[in-house]
Amino acid sequence: MTEAGLSVQEWQTTGHPTLFAEHCKAGSDQPTCLFYGHYDVQPTDPIQEWSFDPFIPEQRDGEIFARGASDDKGQTFFLLKAIQDLIEHDELPINVKIIIEGEEEIGSTGLSGILLEKQDKLQADYLAVVDLSIPSIEKPAVTLGTRGIVAMSVTFTGSSHDLHSGQLGGMVFNPLHALVQVLSSMRNPDGSIAVDGFYDGIKKICEEERDQLDFSFDEKEFYDLFQALPTGGEQEFSPVERVSLRPTLEINGIKGGYGGEGFKTVIPAKALAKISCRLVPGQDPEWVAKKVKEHILLHTPEGITAEVNILEGHGKAAFASPSSPPAKAFAAAYEKVFQAPCRFLLQGGSIPITAELAHVSGAEPVMIGVGLPDDQIHAPNEHFGVKRLELGYLLITEGLKQMRKNS
Amino acid sequence: MTEAGLSVQEWQTTGHPTLFAEHCKAGSDQPTCLFYGHYDVQPTDPIQEWSFDPFIPEQRDGEIFARGASDDKGQTFFLLKAIQDLIEHDELPINVKIIIEGEEEIGSTGLSGILLEKQDKLQADYLAVVDLSIPSIEKPAVTLGTRGIVAMSVTFTGSSHDLHSGQLGGMVFNPLHALVQVLSSMRNPDGSIAVDGFYDGIKKICEEERDQLDFSFDEKEFYDLFQALPTGGEQEFSPVERVSLRPTLEINGIKGGYGGEGFKTVIPAKALAKISCRLVPGQDPEWVAKKVKEHILLHTPEGITAEVNILEGHGKAAFASPSSPPAKAFAAAYEKVFQAPCRFLLQGGSIPITAELAHVSGAEPVMIGVGLPDDQIHAPNEHFGVKRLELGYLLITEGLKQMRKNS
Repeated sequence: MTEAGLSVQEWQTTGHPTLFAEHCKAGSDQPTCLFYGHYDVQPTDPIQEWSFDPFIPEQRDGEIFARGASDDKGQTFFLLKAIQDLIEHDELPINVKIIIEGEEEIGSTGLSGILLEKQDKLQADYLAVVDLSIPSIEKPAVTLGTRGIVAMSVTFTGSSHDLHSGQLGGMVFNPLHALVQVLSSMRNPDGSIAVDGFYDGIKKICEEERDQLDFSFDEKEFYDLFQALPTGGEQEFSPVERVSLRPTLEINGIKGGYGGEGFKTVIPAKALAKISCRLVPGQDPEWVAKKVKEHILLHTPEGITAEVNILEGHGKAAFASPSSPPAKAFAAAYEKVFQAPCRFLLQGGSIPITAELAHVSGAEPVMIGVGLPDDQIHAPNEHFGVKRLELGYLLITEGLKQMRKNS
Repeated sequence: MTEAGLSVQEWQTTGHPTLFAEHCKAGSDQPTCLFYGHYDVQPTDPIQEWSFDPFIPEQRDGEIFARGASDDKGQTFFLLKAIQDLIEHDELPINVKIIIEGEEEIGSTGLSGILLEKQDKLQADYLAVVDLSIPSIEKPAVTLGTRGIVAMSVTFTGSSHDLHSGQLGGMVFNPLHALVQVLSSMRNPDGSIAVDGFYDGIKKICEEERDQLDFSFDEKEFYDLFQALPTGGEQEFSPVERVSLRPTLEINGIKGGYGGEGFKTVIPAKALAKISCRLVPGQDPEWVAKKVKEHILLHTPEGITAEVNILEGHGKAAFASPSSPPAKAFAAAYEKVFQAPCRFLLQGGSIPITAELAHVSGAEPVMIGVGLPDDQIHAPNEHFGVKRLELGYLLITEGLKQMRKNS
């Protein structure tokens, strides 16, 4: 960023540092856009399913394979290259600030902790989060909302050490039985969440904004991508509503007892589950976590102790209006660069810092990017197209032009 | 065993070889006792919870710590030393055969496959399985029955690769949700098994035999050993009945998604469960496995594929009468060696080969040993008391004397 002509600061946090850069020479009559990206990545686990070294990028058939290729190093790269070239040609149309943080995948705790202290530096008119995907190259889209998140881990303990399932099976309460019983009690047969108070406070989106959002879904295309059916979640809502307008409670991991080859006749002392909830506007992460914890403790059978830890890094849902200036600017930019109509979307993922960053900076948020659904972010063999580095570069360049105020 | 003066053969199987030894010089008017032990052990997993190297025995406060110290190397050791000394002093009172196999912990598939071929060699009057424990040093006991077993693994698949729980959570059916839902559907609120046909064919034990069995249970003593409560299993039966006279369906392991530090917002492609059922007299392992498999497939939700594999090494329950000669002989031996009244017990564990070995050899079975409930067999830090090597040695010596027919 220094090479690109930006003025750069490294901000220490309780975790990985945040990089802040700015170039505010377009004049005070021009707006300031704060861009956001992140340099941290997901774990590589399960590493044995990678066909490449996750940290030595490899190009194959026009795609770059590496952890972070799409989420979010690739997208941060084209953002910086676009701004570098505009500065070099003295053509940066508005004032620009950039935040690149290192804890997005673990909830942005460090950045969150210094936001108030850095409030002056962060003041901006618009906030553009460059960490999103579009449905396909033919279907560009501005994302107006992302879901909030809160995650927790639960440990069920039944005894002081592993027991023999022959000697004691049928007598003690197996913590694996407690785990499946408690976790399945959290879901109704219609796919809705059976935790008391889980849906409290949800704000309905107004009809006018709803009409501008795209909820279309192609089941065949979806199946071809993932070999999966859209049979999960709340059956009374359509697939895309379930993944964007509705909250979820997903089990992200379970572990306990013997999982290797053959079998081992054990009743483990402990069983572990990881749970995360995606939240929609109006839901409070701390309230939801409290209610889920209460449900677990209430449903834990006698003879089993449950310990629930609410993990760091929760955040509220973010939502922007389709008629805000940055939404309109990037919609126009997508249409020009992709030569196709631009839609407005809500996405199911979370960038927990977005809502907080928009609040502290006073900026109107918008979420953009050129990720694709089959980039395998968070999974083995993550990849990103070389051609998309160019499309992303052009999107940023054009979006900046569109945000400039004509005098 | 060769050094001990026995005539030894190594029998090849499809897996680990079986050792067979004999010393039949007591005359054809004396009975033949076939002893059984095994040299294989359980996996050491979880290895990080061991305080010692599992395969370098270490003695501490009169206990030997090592994998197999109790189950079943320690017990096989005193059996052989007792017979060695009796042969050396020319005092072996009856004819003796010994089988030491290498696949007890994985279901004795290899030995099972050669039993008929070796039927002549195996002929015996009594079968003494030396692989059992007693309630405590003060409460010696002959075991008259062990439960049968059948085990299986289940894989639930939802998609071709791991998915992002933000992008697709609420839309696809998470295989971890399928796992907890299907497995919890197998158990009724009263602890009984909800699998259709699971209890088919169970033979009730007759009142006369039942009266000779010990079903006493000390909850405080149990809690002190395991920090566990006897709250699992079928609530209408007493703790000891549940673990001996009643069958079980236990989950022995679950695995899926992310189980490490922090969290990873993944919907895994697959989730795995290991299940084993303990069986009582009258239950057929193959029938039970078929019914459990049917239940799983019937309850698997749309969008998820379940694959059930029935694992090798199933076996029926074994049961002997308290009035059989070997039961009476070893009861007398326990009373003499331990200077305490001997009880008759049923145990919850399985030695799947017992029923088959008794059938092929034509022998009346009895199950003995000096293991203790807190030996941590199948768990980290397995151990066995040095003092018990001596008690076991005396038990075998005295039991052999008691089985001798007086002319």
